Amino acid sequence: MPAISKRGQEIYLSPFRKLIPYADQAKAEGKKVYHLNIGQPDILTPPSAIQAVKDTDMKILAYSQAIGNLSYRKKLVSYYKDYGMWLKPSDMIVTTGASEAILFLFLSCLAPGDEIIIPEPFYANYNGFAQMAGVVVKPITCSLEDGFALPTINDFEAAITEKTKAIFITNPNNPTGCVYPEDILIELSQIVKVYDLFLFADEVYREFCFDGQQFFSVLQVEDLAENVVIIDSISKRFSACGARIGTIVSRNREVIDSVTKYAKLRLSPPGFEQVLAEATLDVDPSYMEETIEEYQRRRDVVFDRLRQMEGVVNYRPGGAFYAFAKLPIDNGDKFCQWLLEDFDHNGETLMLAPGEGFYATEGLGEQEVRMAYVLNTNDLNRAMDCLEQALATYPGRVVLEKVNSKVSD
Amino acid sequence: MPAISKRGQEIYLSPFRKLIPYADQAKAEGKKVYHLNIGQPDILTPPSAIQAVKDTDMKILAYSQAIGNLSYRKKLVSYYKDYGMWLKPSDMIVTTGASEAILFLFLSCLAPGDEIIIPEPFYANYNGFAQMAGVVVKPITCSLEDGFALPTINDFEAAITEKTKAIFITNPNNPTGCVYPEDILIELSQIVKVYDLFLFADEVYREFCFDGQQFFSVLQVEDLAENVVIIDSISKRFSACGARIGTIVSRNREVIDSVTKYAKLRLSPPGFEQVLAEATLDVDPSYMEETIEEYQRRRDVVFDRLRQMEGVVNYRPGGAFYAFAKLPIDNGDKFCQWLLEDFDHNGETLMLAPGEGFYATEGLGEQEVRMAYVLNTNDLNRAMDCLEQALATYPGRVVLEKVNSKVSD
Repeated sequence: MPAISKRGQEIYLSPFRKLIPYADQAKAEGKKVYHLNIGQPDILTPPSAIQAVKDTDMKILAYSQAIGNLSYRKKLVSYYKDYGMWLKPSDMIVTTGASEAILFLFLSCLAPGDEIIIPEPFYANYNGFAQMAGVVVKPITCSLEDGFALPTINDFEAAITEKTKAIFITNPNNPTGCVYPEDILIELSQIVKVYDLFLFADEVYREFCFDGQQFFSVLQVEDLAENVVIIDSISKRFSACGARIGTIVSRNREVIDSVTKYAKLRLSPPGFEQVLAEATLDVDPSYMEETIEEYQRRRDVVFDRLRQMEGVVNYRPGGAFYAFAKLPIDNGDKFCQWLLEDFDHNGETLMLAPGEGFYATEGLGEQEVRMAYVLNTNDLNRAMDCLEQALATYPGRVVLEKVNSKVSD
Repeated sequence: MPAISKRGQEIYLSPFRKLIPYADQAKAEGKKVYHLNIGQPDILTPPSAIQAVKDTDMKILAYSQAIGNLSYRKKLVSYYKDYGMWLKPSDMIVTTGASEAILFLFLSCLAPGDEIIIPEPFYANYNGFAQMAGVVVKPITCSLEDGFALPTINDFEAAITEKTKAIFITNPNNPTGCVYPEDILIELSQIVKVYDLFLFADEVYREFCFDGQQFFSVLQVEDLAENVVIIDSISKRFSACGARIGTIVSRNREVIDSVTKYAKLRLSPPGFEQVLAEATLDVDPSYMEETIEEYQRRRDVVFDRLRQMEGVVNYRPGGAFYAFAKLPIDNGDKFCQWLLEDFDHNGETLMLAPGEGFYATEGLGEQEVRMAYVLNTNDLNRAMDCLEQALATYPGRVVLEKVNSKVSD
């Protein structure tokens, strides 16, 4: 039998996956499991967008343009304009999800061995795409105590080496829910400019900014135009994770030209979902307003409940739909497994994502967990009941110094 | 401005693309252009499969299983059984087109620098995926004069080095239309076994075998089960190129496990198209019978017309929907450009794919072209009228020795 390759053996696998059999087992035993572990929203995909797919009179599902339907990219121009980003359809490439966008960007912009700086904790799958492209992730650790604010300019500068080719931010952030304000991003852009780096910004949660915060994109920094590449997706925004429609946006012609070649190689993004994506841009604004309000209500539930739990260190996340918290436990992996295997509260339990997987630095995040608030507030409250009860009875409970975060009030 | 990477600059771009502006210009000038240059069929996607998408009552377009919906993979079991391939749903991974399948396979099975043997001419985009994976393509040249039959065992053995990790065949073949018979594939499988190589078989044209030929898959060779990986797609079979639904099929557990990790990394294949793909398996058999008959009629038109053209060397292609021919011309690139730029026959012309791009060996295929017979027989005849006329008037016409191929009668 021929052997697979070393990279094929070692390719990154999300550490959260190993909890799935325990969740399946818990359900098989009749437990109700509240899934706060993955970012699969429960919000309806806009019915009008699904209807647009049903209304197509497509007779042949042919290849679309490799860079995506022009009609869709044209409409995206106005979408981005509303966010202060002035673009042409040729500044955009429609990708098969943000996943493909990240891979193509890494391949286009970075050579094997090049370094990319990412504030941690970060979306764990970035590791896998970095591995596919042979790129080295250099994390800068953010602190839960200050709500995972962006590292300082000094921190970034200290992390830059001769091999640094890019900085990668996620704004609003997954897994922390942190929204980076304009002044901080303008500071960051100076460093990017001075060292002539790429700045990749994953902005798939752009809409989800709470408490009246104004979203600011690094693409709005005018003299940074050729350094910035935006990664985008309709997955979270329109609860269409299965559509696999993402976008790469850049005013750097070389980047767009190179990514275009990768796009041509894989022929085209999926057809029906481009129709769906285009239709999302005509969805009544009330859909998004209600979605944002709903997520903010959920954020409030999670934040309020967590801060009332003895020994939990948390902060008020300003965006996306995640909360990251430090729990009075010995180990997140063990705790999350225990929740599924050994715990229930009136026949119910919850599934969380252990924090360690979101850090590239070994040993960090051991007592932290990510919660995706993708359930309605009733279910979220019940899940929080479970968590509260679990923390009270977990045999691996430890005492954390109760440090309320600076941003929690 | 930060510079993109060397690989980003050098990533393979199909040489055929450079003709597109000339085709656009020809059309702008009012010429009718018959497109024989790309494999985008004009056959209708099965209406019942499109209807299945319209009939879904999906409220949330959620992530599917990363390896594809189980319901689809279950149905594929019977599909493959009809071809003598005995499989379990867990032997299959649904990919975003065959393109993704090829990339994942190269990454999983081959290390950077490993060699993969591919009979040439071959589907040009294989080069790009090889480049993405850092894999070296070692071509073995097939001969037009014997209808591009599979190279002999001796040829394969001569090409094997210490770095050879896999052999990659396309059966039925794109761009040659050659169908490899069972006895030849069984011979090949012996070499594969002796050298313990992977055997990748791209079988996306499986149905399209003419003249009563029986399709044989290398996956039917029982003691080769752990060496073989099949690449599949519904794109050509069901005229659904824009669906981006492919499959990787293997009974090698390590391969499937590794590809599964790559699949999880990009989360899931597209949702609506998995519904479409599943529904194609319920399409009335008459759809496929009629499609095959139609392609065979077209093959006959192209074959008959080409053999009547003075100076053209061709053969009767046995499958897929391509013909590859040698023309009495100085250079295929020039000729194809001239067809669009300087030629018309009653206001009509045709677009072909120059042969050179299908060869990895430099200097080969210069006088060859590929024709995809994806037009109805009327249009095909008119396109052949154009070609005949063009060959008579092309200023770069040269005299080829008229060698009728062994398989052309």
